[in-house]
Amino acid sequence: MPIRLDSASSDFEQSFVALLGGKREASQEVGDVVAAIIADVRTRGDDAVVELTNKFDHTHFTAADLRISPEEIDRASARVSDEVRAALQTAHDRVKAHHEKQLPTDHIYQDALGVTLGTRWTPVDAVGIYVPGGLATYPSTVIMGAVPAKLAGVGRIALAVPTPGGQISAVVLLAAKIAGVTEIYRIGGAQAIAALAYGTETVGRVDKIVGPGNAYVAAAKRQVFGQVGIDSIAGPSEVLVIADGSANPAWIAADLIAQAEHGGGAQSILVTTEKGLADAVEAEVDRQLSLLPRQDIAREGWDEFGAVITVASLDEAAALANRIASEHVELALDDPDVILPAIRHAGAIFLGHHTPEAIGDYVGGSNHVLPTARSARFASGLGVLDFMKRTSLLRCDPASLAALREAAVTLAEVEALDGHGRSISIRLNH
Amino acid sequence: MPIRLDSASSDFEQSFVALLGGKREASQEVGDVVAAIIADVRTRGDDAVVELTNKFDHTHFTAADLRISPEEIDRASARVSDEVRAALQTAHDRVKAHHEKQLPTDHIYQDALGVTLGTRWTPVDAVGIYVPGGLATYPSTVIMGAVPAKLAGVGRIALAVPTPGGQISAVVLLAAKIAGVTEIYRIGGAQAIAALAYGTETVGRVDKIVGPGNAYVAAAKRQVFGQVGIDSIAGPSEVLVIADGSANPAWIAADLIAQAEHGGGAQSILVTTEKGLADAVEAEVDRQLSLLPRQDIAREGWDEFGAVITVASLDEAAALANRIASEHVELALDDPDVILPAIRHAGAIFLGHHTPEAIGDYVGGSNHVLPTARSARFASGLGVLDFMKRTSLLRCDPASLAALREAAVTLAEVEALDGHGRSISIRLNH
Repeated sequence: MPIRLDSASSDFEQSFVALLGGKREASQEVGDVVAAIIADVRTRGDDAVVELTNKFDHTHFTAADLRISPEEIDRASARVSDEVRAALQTAHDRVKAHHEKQLPTDHIYQDALGVTLGTRWTPVDAVGIYVPGGLATYPSTVIMGAVPAKLAGVGRIALAVPTPGGQISAVVLLAAKIAGVTEIYRIGGAQAIAALAYGTETVGRVDKIVGPGNAYVAAAKRQVFGQVGIDSIAGPSEVLVIADGSANPAWIAADLIAQAEHGGGAQSILVTTEKGLADAVEAEVDRQLSLLPRQDIAREGWDEFGAVITVASLDEAAALANRIASEHVELALDDPDVILPAIRHAGAIFLGHHTPEAIGDYVGGSNHVLPTARSARFASGLGVLDFMKRTSLLRCDPASLAALREAAVTLAEVEALDGHGRSISIRLNH
Repeated sequence: MPIRLDSASSDFEQSFVALLGGKREASQEVGDVVAAIIADVRTRGDDAVVELTNKFDHTHFTAADLRISPEEIDRASARVSDEVRAALQTAHDRVKAHHEKQLPTDHIYQDALGVTLGTRWTPVDAVGIYVPGGLATYPSTVIMGAVPAKLAGVGRIALAVPTPGGQISAVVLLAAKIAGVTEIYRIGGAQAIAALAYGTETVGRVDKIVGPGNAYVAAAKRQVFGQVGIDSIAGPSEVLVIADGSANPAWIAADLIAQAEHGGGAQSILVTTEKGLADAVEAEVDRQLSLLPRQDIAREGWDEFGAVITVASLDEAAALANRIASEHVELALDDPDVILPAIRHAGAIFLGHHTPEAIGDYVGGSNHVLPTARSARFASGLGVLDFMKRTSLLRCDPASLAALREAAVTLAEVEALDGHGRSISIRLNH
């Protein structure tokens, strides 16, 4: 049974804070293990990566196996059905069309003093995209990572995907091909992150690593941050559905189940102004779960992490949504635009009764790599800007330098950096 | 003596790689110490912050002293000279005018299928800006952090500044007042980062922490990343000057000294096509250093970390610049625009003979919090976007959901997420 809260009850604040602070991942002490793996990969390169991969993924690879050959990619891709191929192409095309609009423009101008100021965007040279393997395969995540990188102008797009037991999804390989990935390595875990960050004989070093992963991958990303850029430290996925009496309980139940079936701590929360809807949704979740082929994970997730919260008004719902700062927020309302401006912290917002979160996972066009674990308070979903960086340009002529001299030299003196002031004055003393 | 390299010599590549990989900071094993400090602040709040502050900063504070009162800020501000006040105001106004142009615009549109897609930007609610104290005071860093935060619409802008021996710079307090800082805490080190990230009785919790700091601050930022956002893990400052025969050796020398006087591993590198200029600059650095009031730090930095590299062409200089990916790049050339497009990795570029890097530190208008330690390969200087986040909006109607159904359900099945597919189909089965 999910937790049930009512904002009118006297212990609500306490229960809500407990819900917010609840741990959804086993807090694993993996930092030391990961540090040792990174040190090993830096020292021994391919030898370490091969050993660790064979140990954790139960494979029998040599260094020559680490990078998947173009021939293997082509052979595997050819096995994918036309239906799946078309679906991947649709996802690719829609994600590309939307992300194209994120491309920034340079801006260079001269101000009234004659100083030229500019902002120039350039792509990162090489990026690594981590795609989890194992229980499930995620071709959609390949597209969500590679398409914005390609649009940004990244030259090398490397994919790391673990292949437990040596199995690799043909659909993942086809997705990589469609999305413009330039290299695919069958490696995972902290050893994959270390190899991408520092390079080995076989694995080309990249400048930035993005994508979700387990606790080892997250710890490794944290430790290599600085050596390379990273997108975020990802946690379990989550959805918050805000619904009023206009919502269809069966549809809401389906969305809550869709989130819970990710497992691994994924969380589904319903906030509603209608107690009747809350009851009906809970009953519907039970009913639909019993019809789901792989119901165990979803049921366990719903029972352990699910929550149903009744509130007095949509304003109250929006206030709670901002405190939860959920990765996904659904507004299951006839007129979602009314409360949209009040929801300030969310990775993505899905508006109206006909926008289930799952449509955004695949073919909506927006990115599905989104901030989790309340990080929508400060972070954004993956996009083109994650694969670019901004350089400032500044140009003075003698007149504008002279006009700025006094203020600059005064501040340099305050900061006891005389050499700074002198580097300005020396150009004007003549 | 700085290291001298010539790109034509047979061992150049080896020496250059050694220069790139050289450690400029004592590699301190501070991770465990910092973890203990963070845990202590989380557990004991103000008590821990007060104890740690008094221990490290040699003060005698109680919890009531941690936050600087508006009266103290006003009193201190009143003591600042009119000249310094005017210089701060100039810096503020120019930084504000430039950063205003970085404000993003929302973009919401409907595609051919009738799907509404949107990108909406909102400010972070509360940010913390760390400003180093101690040897020097940095009012300019207060402005560089707070102005873009204020422009972004951040409601709470908290400043943390350590006050060794209880001393605080009146200019820092005035800068904070001018820039719109809402709270100032006299705390530093890992305890300041922990207090901002988790909150204490006195220190308000923030959502993101930015600004430079020492090894303890950097380690603390790395450890709290996820709980809050951070800008980067900062290292020592650095400049790369690219000059040809048109450059004035005395001016270049002054710029190299200005960088070296930061100390703490700051690095100055000259890359030039003219051996004669290289010699003249080295001689000028010696001469000017002997005239600098506080020459010890600058001389030590130049001797230990400085480098002069002669190359055959400006193309070669640009290629080296991209490998160095320096925080600051000066193009001391008559026509810097010729090689500007070839310099892809740099925090900021200063163009022409009359744009010393120091002008950008104070009153150029661009930000001086820039990526260090080769991170310009993937990171940007501080700006308005660092204080905002992007939420995706998605809205389907029955027709567009129906149009996308097949591709989405197909991909959900490939990923073994049946519940995802069902959440789409259930809305269309009627």
